Amino acid sequence: MADKQGILIVLSGPSGSGKDTVLKRLIEKNDDIKVSISMTTRSMREGEIDGADYYFVTTDYFEKKIADGEMLEYAQYAGNYYGTPKAPVDEMLRAGINVVLEIEVQGAEKIRKIYPDAVSVFLMPPSIPVLEERLRLRGTEDDEALSHRLFIAEQEIRRAGEFNYIVVNDSIDRAVNDFETVIRAEKMRFSRNKNIISEVINNV
Amino acid sequence: MADKQGILIVLSGPSGSGKDTVLKRLIEKNDDIKVSISMTTRSMREGEIDGADYYFVTTDYFEKKIADGEMLEYAQYAGNYYGTPKAPVDEMLRAGINVVLEIEVQGAEKIRKIYPDAVSVFLMPPSIPVLEERLRLRGTEDDEALSHRLFIAEQEIRRAGEFNYIVVNDSIDRAVNDFETVIRAEKMRFSRNKNIISEVINNV
Repeated sequence: MADKQGILIVLSGPSGSGKDTVLKRLIEKNDDIKVSISMTTRSMREGEIDGADYYFVTTDYFEKKIADGEMLEYAQYAGNYYGTPKAPVDEMLRAGINVVLEIEVQGAEKIRKIYPDAVSVFLMPPSIPVLEERLRLRGTEDDEALSHRLFIAEQEIRRAGEFNYIVVNDSIDRAVNDFETVIRAEKMRFSRNKNIISEVINNV
Repeated sequence: MADKQGILIVLSGPSGSGKDTVLKRLIEKNDDIKVSISMTTRSMREGEIDGADYYFVTTDYFEKKIADGEMLEYAQYAGNYYGTPKAPVDEMLRAGINVVLEIEVQGAEKIRKIYPDAVSVFLMPPSIPVLEERLRLRGTEDDEALSHRLFIAEQEIRRAGEFNYIVVNDSIDRAVNDFETVIRAEKMRFSRNKNIISEVINNV
């Protein structure tokens, strides 16, 4: 069963669900899990590393990638492009690495069309009040912006049924553990081990 | 997420794959996993307990259960009936217990028709030579019976693709752990947590 294809994991969840924290811990703990790196046209900031934080590219280059169908998804914010190039994801999958794609709720369906074997995970806050508390603790927004964020979060939570698995983030450690459990179980699916019958019978 | 329905797990695998050993360990370790108890018309043996080893019943009773459609599956060996009554399985599932149904490879499909949410696991020997070695160590059969068993095992292994998950039994501990992983991951499927959206939004 060596040299198997990695699994593409689509991770989504509302702002404040803890996606970044869970992902960071997950990657620190598991050598065979990596996050896809986004491409952007915005300028590199102090301390950022090209090819680690983002692939920093020109607008012309980004638009050519879009035209060539080489972006898995992209969007524009504040005049800059942000998106996920397909080639590095495919390369990691071929190398047997499990790749996590952190994505907006509405982008998940598009990815599933491109990668039917992808596994999608929705990171769920334990409750709306807990989510509100977490967003408030960040202290980065006024009450109006916060209400708007909660409104969006609720819309996103209503779409959780579009995902295969629900991981409830009531504790980071447990959420990371649950995420690992999903990946380990998915590895055992027959559909990802079709060669095993002949391997066992022919003892290769 | 309290009071959730248990998961029905169909376990199959060839003779010598270690089903009994894995199951025994699994149940010792997990209070929320139980094995369905078979019903039989054969006489109780020294040391056996009614309702634990089997439900011991009369032929009339067994045949009435069949006629009433209350048997999940059954077969006759050496003039006695053996089978799985549906009612105790349903009762455990309702109580949130995960029920393992150890069954012949060809019986698995029938169970999936009755329980579309069932999860099926095929316990795979690491290789045919390892399987042969394990069967030989039992020392209960002559060479001809052994060859026949290996022939049947190979036929069964060829049907592993009818199962959702493949657990390779190269070490009992690892196989038990893999089995637990499958159950824990399945618990996180959105399809088994449909109420979670309203629970989180309404904070119930």
